[in-house]
Amino acid sequence: MDGPTKIFLDEKDMPRQWYNIQADMPTPMKPPLNPGTGQPISPDDLAPVFPMNLIEQEVSQERWIDIPEPVLEKLLLWRPSPLYRAKAFEEALGTPAKIYYKNEGVSPPGSHKPNTAVAQAYYNKAFGIERLTTETGAGQWGSALAFACKLFGLKLKVYMVRISFDQKPFRKFMMETWGAECVPSPSPNTNAGRSILEKLPDTPGSLGIAISEAIEDAVTSKNCRYSLGSVLNHVLLHQTIIGLEAQKQLALIDTYPDVVVGCAGGGSNFAGLSFPYIRDKIHGKEVHVVAAEPAACPTMTKAPFVYDFGDTAMTTPLLPMHSLGHDFVPPPLHAGGLRYHGMAPLVSQLIIDGLIEPRSYHQLECYKYAVLWAGTEGFIPAPETSHAIAAAAEEALRAKEEGKEKVILLNWSGHGLMDLTGYDAYLSGKLSDYALPEEEIARAEAALEGLPKP
Amino acid sequence: MDGPTKIFLDEKDMPRQWYNIQADMPTPMKPPLNPGTGQPISPDDLAPVFPMNLIEQEVSQERWIDIPEPVLEKLLLWRPSPLYRAKAFEEALGTPAKIYYKNEGVSPPGSHKPNTAVAQAYYNKAFGIERLTTETGAGQWGSALAFACKLFGLKLKVYMVRISFDQKPFRKFMMETWGAECVPSPSPNTNAGRSILEKLPDTPGSLGIAISEAIEDAVTSKNCRYSLGSVLNHVLLHQTIIGLEAQKQLALIDTYPDVVVGCAGGGSNFAGLSFPYIRDKIHGKEVHVVAAEPAACPTMTKAPFVYDFGDTAMTTPLLPMHSLGHDFVPPPLHAGGLRYHGMAPLVSQLIIDGLIEPRSYHQLECYKYAVLWAGTEGFIPAPETSHAIAAAAEEALRAKEEGKEKVILLNWSGHGLMDLTGYDAYLSGKLSDYALPEEEIARAEAALEGLPKP
Repeated sequence: MDGPTKIFLDEKDMPRQWYNIQADMPTPMKPPLNPGTGQPISPDDLAPVFPMNLIEQEVSQERWIDIPEPVLEKLLLWRPSPLYRAKAFEEALGTPAKIYYKNEGVSPPGSHKPNTAVAQAYYNKAFGIERLTTETGAGQWGSALAFACKLFGLKLKVYMVRISFDQKPFRKFMMETWGAECVPSPSPNTNAGRSILEKLPDTPGSLGIAISEAIEDAVTSKNCRYSLGSVLNHVLLHQTIIGLEAQKQLALIDTYPDVVVGCAGGGSNFAGLSFPYIRDKIHGKEVHVVAAEPAACPTMTKAPFVYDFGDTAMTTPLLPMHSLGHDFVPPPLHAGGLRYHGMAPLVSQLIIDGLIEPRSYHQLECYKYAVLWAGTEGFIPAPETSHAIAAAAEEALRAKEEGKEKVILLNWSGHGLMDLTGYDAYLSGKLSDYALPEEEIARAEAALEGLPKP
Repeated sequence: MDGPTKIFLDEKDMPRQWYNIQADMPTPMKPPLNPGTGQPISPDDLAPVFPMNLIEQEVSQERWIDIPEPVLEKLLLWRPSPLYRAKAFEEALGTPAKIYYKNEGVSPPGSHKPNTAVAQAYYNKAFGIERLTTETGAGQWGSALAFACKLFGLKLKVYMVRISFDQKPFRKFMMETWGAECVPSPSPNTNAGRSILEKLPDTPGSLGIAISEAIEDAVTSKNCRYSLGSVLNHVLLHQTIIGLEAQKQLALIDTYPDVVVGCAGGGSNFAGLSFPYIRDKIHGKEVHVVAAEPAACPTMTKAPFVYDFGDTAMTTPLLPMHSLGHDFVPPPLHAGGLRYHGMAPLVSQLIIDGLIEPRSYHQLECYKYAVLWAGTEGFIPAPETSHAIAAAAEEALRAKEEGKEKVILLNWSGHGLMDLTGYDAYLSGKLSDYALPEEEIARAEAALEGLPKP
């Protein structure tokens, strides 16, 4: 066996700072706009929604931001996450490439999400906030924030899209085990929820409605704020600990990756691994960075770069991003975390600047590689993660053709133990492939006509 | 923070041998008996059921048995498992005790079971076997063996107790993802299954029936053997890697435990952690070893030490063990892995010899500590594991009373992400406590009257 299968990082070597890519971007990020005035929003505009310490992080241009000691202490419950080498998967592909993967599935909720959930819970607590609200689809984010709120003694109310609430109760049970209240959305708790329920009493709900409810609850309650699990700058910032750890771990075996890949829905796990490498790339290092998304929701590969709302109900500021339109209804897809209509503004800008290559993959191909992974490496990947695996496999097979000893680093963003119905559907031949048709892209572009251009 | 939260063991320091406690037992284990003749069974008697290389391990008196290189290579997919310190849980209890836990939940199926599944799959493959059969209740063992068979290219058929097959499909999906065939038991595939189905077409099934079907399938098929996930000597042997790793990890921080605890259903995870410590104890070291079981199935604390069958259908040899009787019907209990009627013969003998202290815990107390654990350490424990946590908490609170800086080591045998319905039942007040009444013990003792005495 050449080299170790797992590379651990000593706790004392865990990164003490997050990396803020805004300090290094060739094109500075365009500001979010107030949809009413068309003018850049100010920190004060966001104050009813987020605590000021997180708003300061959102707009910070500092390259390195200290991780507070209480956050470090909680991250130590599972971090530094191990870096694994996927030797058995390499062997199955017959590739000369070496595939390393950062196993973010080792966190208590099983994904990368708690990296920012813990930080956000801490900052809210430090700001005197007593309760948080958020939305969740299948429950990955809701369970991560429930875990984090429990650690810091914050109350949490999660608005969970009703169809998931009814059909996938297990992540709701996780949230409740960590002490959070989880209600189906639309709910009778908010004006937004009530007005939908009056019109459509049997609606399955949507992420857009759930966001509107969570924000309304936060801004109308005392000592309460809203928390978001992806897209925003401070969320991506908190995830950079993944890439910073990976750099230290690979340095222990004198290795630097040729290719860095991650899956991208809102963009946070992808950014977390890749931003420290994109920093190197900006400074002249040769490294290829690939973001993988589903062909059914091709935000990065097909959608225009526009100013758009973050939510369906148009309650957020306008963000400069690749977007399929805030009223985009994603097709059925087991990778629930990759169904968001937009892409993080930071990731979007870096795509425009040519620093990230986006690629899309079909669902059936992703499951094929996920099952191969499970049968070789053992760990069953989340459906989202399978997109990164498909991209890594594509790179590894290319290396085989070219006879190159390429080093591939992938972000294994979470395990699939809560998503086994997707595997069952795949294995029993019930899954179909679907790529978003061109006319849907055209429709999205037309719908975004009236909004400001970045 | 005093000391690290996690202690990793370098891959090159992973144990290369399993520890066989038979070489050190003060009272040699009594032999299994042929129920027909009442005479000790010979290896040949077992040959239709298990491959001869595993039978040799079952009866071996060698202290150290080499772990074959291909087994080591597969164990490296997740081993050495990390040793964690439960600082936040200690703090919540306000104890001066230090609690270390061996996190066996990091394996791909999420429990300690693959430690023996991988070894058994390897030995069967090496013996020329092409297909295995086994039974499973909630699916922990079936999924671990499915994983292991996939790694070595063996076919597997799992007879899953029908009520679990119908109500808990997720571990079935895991097994299928790893390529195993999983059928509800009783099935029309076997004589045993057909005869039950004729009499009771709507039976929910039982572990006893599933074992009978799996054995019948194995002994009547070509190049096929049966595999068992606990109880037998070779299974416990394979699990000793847990304790051997823990000893090396604790030595890295110059620590030796005062108390070693594990939960025990069939006995394998408990034995895996504790046997290397019991060896030290036999040689004069002071260490207290505690085995935790449910009050609802008090095999070790209440049942007699007898010769009994391993299965309900009385197809196995007679084993010398603590047993509630092979026809014992366990009460409803969320810790599915702790519902077995007997206890591993090796563990039973060591209890008789005073080297292990068995204790029983009530379900509600176990869930109380499991929820506290989830809210402090983050990881949600399997319902089985919660019994070990309850025992560790009891020890830690005693240390608090006594003002002692005790070191407690517990086997965190698996995570509870596939068992969240139990948490939901607990949190919504639907769980009741239940201790097996004395008359049931008396009934078991009476039912065992006709069998030979150890």
